[in-house]
Amino acid sequence: MTVGTSILDLSTPVPVIDEAVVAANIARVQDYMDAHGIAFRPHIKTHKLPALAGAQRDAGASGINCQKISEAEVFADAGFEDILITFNILGAEKTAPLAALNARTNLKVVADSLKTVEGLAAAFSADRPLTVLVECDTGGGRCGVQTPTEALALAQAIAAAPGLRFGGVLTYPRPSSEDTVEAFFSATRAALAQAGIDCPVVSTGGTPSLFSAHKVPSATEYRAGTYIYNDRAMVRAGHAGLDRCAMHVLATVVSRPAENRAVLDSGSKALTSDLLGFDDYGLIVDYPDARITTLSEEHAVVDLSACGKKPRIGDKLRIIPNHTCVVSNMFDAVVFHRDGVVTRTLPVAARGRVW
Amino acid sequence: MTVGTSILDLSTPVPVIDEAVVAANIARVQDYMDAHGIAFRPHIKTHKLPALAGAQRDAGASGINCQKISEAEVFADAGFEDILITFNILGAEKTAPLAALNARTNLKVVADSLKTVEGLAAAFSADRPLTVLVECDTGGGRCGVQTPTEALALAQAIAAAPGLRFGGVLTYPRPSSEDTVEAFFSATRAALAQAGIDCPVVSTGGTPSLFSAHKVPSATEYRAGTYIYNDRAMVRAGHAGLDRCAMHVLATVVSRPAENRAVLDSGSKALTSDLLGFDDYGLIVDYPDARITTLSEEHAVVDLSACGKKPRIGDKLRIIPNHTCVVSNMFDAVVFHRDGVVTRTLPVAARGRVW
Repeated sequence: MTVGTSILDLSTPVPVIDEAVVAANIARVQDYMDAHGIAFRPHIKTHKLPALAGAQRDAGASGINCQKISEAEVFADAGFEDILITFNILGAEKTAPLAALNARTNLKVVADSLKTVEGLAAAFSADRPLTVLVECDTGGGRCGVQTPTEALALAQAIAAAPGLRFGGVLTYPRPSSEDTVEAFFSATRAALAQAGIDCPVVSTGGTPSLFSAHKVPSATEYRAGTYIYNDRAMVRAGHAGLDRCAMHVLATVVSRPAENRAVLDSGSKALTSDLLGFDDYGLIVDYPDARITTLSEEHAVVDLSACGKKPRIGDKLRIIPNHTCVVSNMFDAVVFHRDGVVTRTLPVAARGRVW
Repeated sequence: MTVGTSILDLSTPVPVIDEAVVAANIARVQDYMDAHGIAFRPHIKTHKLPALAGAQRDAGASGINCQKISEAEVFADAGFEDILITFNILGAEKTAPLAALNARTNLKVVADSLKTVEGLAAAFSADRPLTVLVECDTGGGRCGVQTPTEALALAQAIAAAPGLRFGGVLTYPRPSSEDTVEAFFSATRAALAQAGIDCPVVSTGGTPSLFSAHKVPSATEYRAGTYIYNDRAMVRAGHAGLDRCAMHVLATVVSRPAENRAVLDSGSKALTSDLLGFDDYGLIVDYPDARITTLSEEHAVVDLSACGKKPRIGDKLRIIPNHTCVVSNMFDAVVFHRDGVVTRTLPVAARGRVW
């Protein structure tokens, strides 16, 4: 993977990242957030690379968002100080490393239950308190308190704990649900104000409807990850065109056993099995009518029935994955390029950090 | 992950492997192969661990099966000598490391096209020839020549190349298609015999219908990987009962936002999105009526509607994944235990070896 060589000389499968597209994606989103006065906190899950988080910070990001303690440790080691972990952290085996991390960074976590708050309260003390935001389920259907009333009660529990500081409210919303999010947040803010509790941060996020962030006037902060690379799902969501997809998985045609079948060397260990509502496993840029119908770990089976021209054995193809974040997690390293010429190879420093 | 501690003290999500079940699975399958006089070549993709391949060899395995060069390098480094790579290898960036591997092991690869054979022929010479088997598509619908006539033609091309040796024929069949496989192989063997070409190995494989291996009398060798751990798909296939599933993913309930919703910390980075025909993402052993309906990278959303008892926040649950091989690929290390007490932690040495 020598700098200056063609990406077509790389051993496949390999994710290749277009430097110019990454830079343009960072600028485009930061400019929008700046124009609307919204603090922007990129989620590092998409790239898992301190170098790219540095570029996001240089562009104006207010901090970073991680999902797990072990990810945050990688970025703290790389010098990042303002870190939000959007996860309910439970158990002594986790609160001990969390306290170590809180001692050296400006750390924030979330909670959606009294159980989580009690566990955190027992592990932190007033000399180095932990900032905790209340996670709200505004329709995303994952974690989060269900009502503004519950949010207030949890905020009060946080505020009452000597080792904790109430940091605000947060949601991971359904795309295009800005009105619902605003209604939840404005009711919660009113309840908090009435109870005399200051709410410094109101945070929402997600790439698909990122450019509607200004439709949630209560929000002070936005979080998003995928926008830096984009993927097939973001193109479908209307967030970006194909030319804004910075990541391609480069794959080789290793077999053409039948007229309408090609087999690539990019299986689920490269593309992952994430469908995200599609019924095939990625878009082959040079053969848009081809369909990746089946993945095994090391093989992708492609149906060529609808293709006029068909790829040959040995051809290297560029695939836009359905979901780019999960692809980053499969590889020890990613290769960057400019116009197809390798510029750098970076180890995926926070890959596989699951706890 | 100290030896002697309870697996319930581990930081989740984490794959835990039952030592006794692994040992029993190895013995059960090797005994069957021995009883039928079939050489058994375990596929290392399931565990990716030299220590377990060593146990399989000690039990009587004839060699190992890898899928990629970079996997085979890990096992060659660990002292394994008889290695079959069941992949069409193309391109100078791959044949160079392949030649290095062939210089130090008893290596075999497969081919299903003249293009692959020509590439290999150009990279190997008579002083250290490479053994090549012809891959046959007996109905699996992935790689492989389509007919015995094509198999013969490719065998002749291999035999004619000074740097190559014809090693036999191989298939990755549909489960329970023993009659079809036998028909393909016996016709191919007859054609090869008539052409005066010796066919030292006839290889088939797959865990789901492994115990029907003896119904393919032409076969001299069987390859399988999943049998060592088993998983939800193998239970459905009838290969094993739940008590023969050696791998569980241990996960923590991190949220109970609604009466019938639990959220676990085992997302697609732990369980993977492999469905394998199921409509949910794994079996929660202690709550078999719970359904893991949605995965994001770090969260699993569980529908508890059908559950009598329901898990609480902080509970640690054991999950049998749909597909065990892909889970091994997600983790840098796996923890072994006996009756829930940690016995050893092993780095997943061949994890992420995609090329």
